[in-house]
Amino acid sequence: MEGIDIRRADGALFGLAQERLDSLTKPQGSLGRLEEFARRIVAITGNPMPPLFGKKAIFVFAGDHGVVDEGVSLFPKEVTVQMVHNFLSGGAGINVLARHAGADVVVVDMGVDHDFSDDPGLICRKVVRGTRNMRKGPAMTNDEAIQAIRTGIALAREYADRGYRLFGTGDMGIGNTTPSSAIASVMTGEPPADVTGKGTGISDDSLAFKVTVIEDAIALNSPDPNDPVDVLAKVGGAEIGGIAGLVLGAASLGIPVVIDGLISTAGAIIAWALEPAAADYMFAAHNSVEKGHRVMLERMGLEPILDMGLRLGEGTGAALAITLIEAGLKIYREMATFDEAGVSKELA
Amino acid sequence: MEGIDIRRADGALFGLAQERLDSLTKPQGSLGRLEEFARRIVAITGNPMPPLFGKKAIFVFAGDHGVVDEGVSLFPKEVTVQMVHNFLSGGAGINVLARHAGADVVVVDMGVDHDFSDDPGLICRKVVRGTRNMRKGPAMTNDEAIQAIRTGIALAREYADRGYRLFGTGDMGIGNTTPSSAIASVMTGEPPADVTGKGTGISDDSLAFKVTVIEDAIALNSPDPNDPVDVLAKVGGAEIGGIAGLVLGAASLGIPVVIDGLISTAGAIIAWALEPAAADYMFAAHNSVEKGHRVMLERMGLEPILDMGLRLGEGTGAALAITLIEAGLKIYREMATFDEAGVSKELA
Repeated sequence: MEGIDIRRADGALFGLAQERLDSLTKPQGSLGRLEEFARRIVAITGNPMPPLFGKKAIFVFAGDHGVVDEGVSLFPKEVTVQMVHNFLSGGAGINVLARHAGADVVVVDMGVDHDFSDDPGLICRKVVRGTRNMRKGPAMTNDEAIQAIRTGIALAREYADRGYRLFGTGDMGIGNTTPSSAIASVMTGEPPADVTGKGTGISDDSLAFKVTVIEDAIALNSPDPNDPVDVLAKVGGAEIGGIAGLVLGAASLGIPVVIDGLISTAGAIIAWALEPAAADYMFAAHNSVEKGHRVMLERMGLEPILDMGLRLGEGTGAALAITLIEAGLKIYREMATFDEAGVSKELA
Repeated sequence: MEGIDIRRADGALFGLAQERLDSLTKPQGSLGRLEEFARRIVAITGNPMPPLFGKKAIFVFAGDHGVVDEGVSLFPKEVTVQMVHNFLSGGAGINVLARHAGADVVVVDMGVDHDFSDDPGLICRKVVRGTRNMRKGPAMTNDEAIQAIRTGIALAREYADRGYRLFGTGDMGIGNTTPSSAIASVMTGEPPADVTGKGTGISDDSLAFKVTVIEDAIALNSPDPNDPVDVLAKVGGAEIGGIAGLVLGAASLGIPVVIDGLISTAGAIIAWALEPAAADYMFAAHNSVEKGHRVMLERMGLEPILDMGLRLGEGTGAALAITLIEAGLKIYREMATFDEAGVSKELA
């Protein structure tokens, strides 16, 4: 993408990192994925001894969706606004779990159908006032989609400048599993029925209808799988674009970014399709209940960290995964070596 | 077991806890296993609004094993002593991860073949000075096995008295995957080859030999699967007995206990066979690489929380899982309800 420069993470540093990991007082490889996290952080940051992350931010991008007019969600559309207020007053799931992980919650209005101008603490970067109903036409224009991505990139830069060194992604938007499944279908080539789940918990009948809505939207708009911005515009959403941009920005800055569930992964796959090297900077937080999620992770070659039956979104899975990724970095930094501790190595 | 009284966790409280969980600002059930953790903590503690755990302890029980004379481990036996010193100076994997989880590490000498009398910080409860080689006779006497269990129970009571409200189990003992796999085989009825893994990382040939050693030890000693103390004595170890006792003590006190990997689960299955209700108080931290681990968890009906390719022991998996279990409790305590936040509920 123009204006963004993402290098592959420095693979040569994997070996250097593993050398240190193998010098620590444990059998080689015995800390499994914690060692993988450490190796990746070394390669991502380009630093053989990366400092602790210090300031961490989980970005909750919010947006509304015209497609809720079709009746694809269990919750009324007003809940997007209500939940934004809940985020700002600290009572939502992501607030609890971000505090637990020592991360700040950054709430961004990307496209909520409401005027928040008086709300302190909210970052207003509205691209649309709700997307249009994708079953009747494109959800956004190409320019709106690009603006959403640019907004995410700009936020990554702003927060990097403020000293944040680890990002997590999150989302809020009633109805947004519908565009996310549509993106999953177009970007992976799998039929909508194979990548669409029950979202907040709709019935089997409603699920069948949701699949039909997605099929109709794809048939009507013909998004081009080789043009990720076209896909984002026609069957995506503003908050999904913000996530895509944040991922691109993080990758361009050498900052690891922890991808939450289905909606975040829909944003990540747009970023990955624009800049495949971005995957080097992503950590897949978890394997959600939504089946389109896993399909997209596999396409990007990402292995989820947790499998906890989550399907809330907001960045809740990312917050949990951050505690484990940090644990890997602390192992790398803080464990004693065999020499330091006077512990005998393996028998020859 | 005599002197220990374990009630089933109060299942009636599950419903009460779920009612609160369903009143919080999220789709019902959308926080998956975090909700399960919260429900279980309510039932375990018998408190509809359990406080945060406050003081948490991970107990690392250390012991040596006569069976290392057979050459079943990749590391020399002296490493048990060296690693105990590493724990005491804070440089081991468990020290790093316990700090990360806000838990204290309690190092207990249950049966190390070394005199630690001058080491401050170490809790000396030596039952044996290394077990005997189980390929040549019983590893411990029945009295020693009972003493090991009683020691664990006593420690649970001491730390409960000191205000600790969450326990994790851990182990250190060169060679101790061998008795743990032997226990797994006897207690589940699976052949040794199906429950024995590579421990610290031995070769395929060494693994085949390790299986033979376990087969020989079981054939020679004929441990009685209906008498868990007999199994612990003949093919177990002192640190495994300490873990069994800690689990029993925790359960009798209504304190949740997070079970680490293979060795800890061997201790847990002894506790469970003595007092099946103890399983209500256990959290299975993770699914380790050691294949006997999963078999024992399934027998006890426990679903592991993490799957990170760990095989270090020490309580490292327990430390990681503790951060997630606490996250579940915080969700339960700290999230706003629909009413509090003014968020609309699901459409009828």
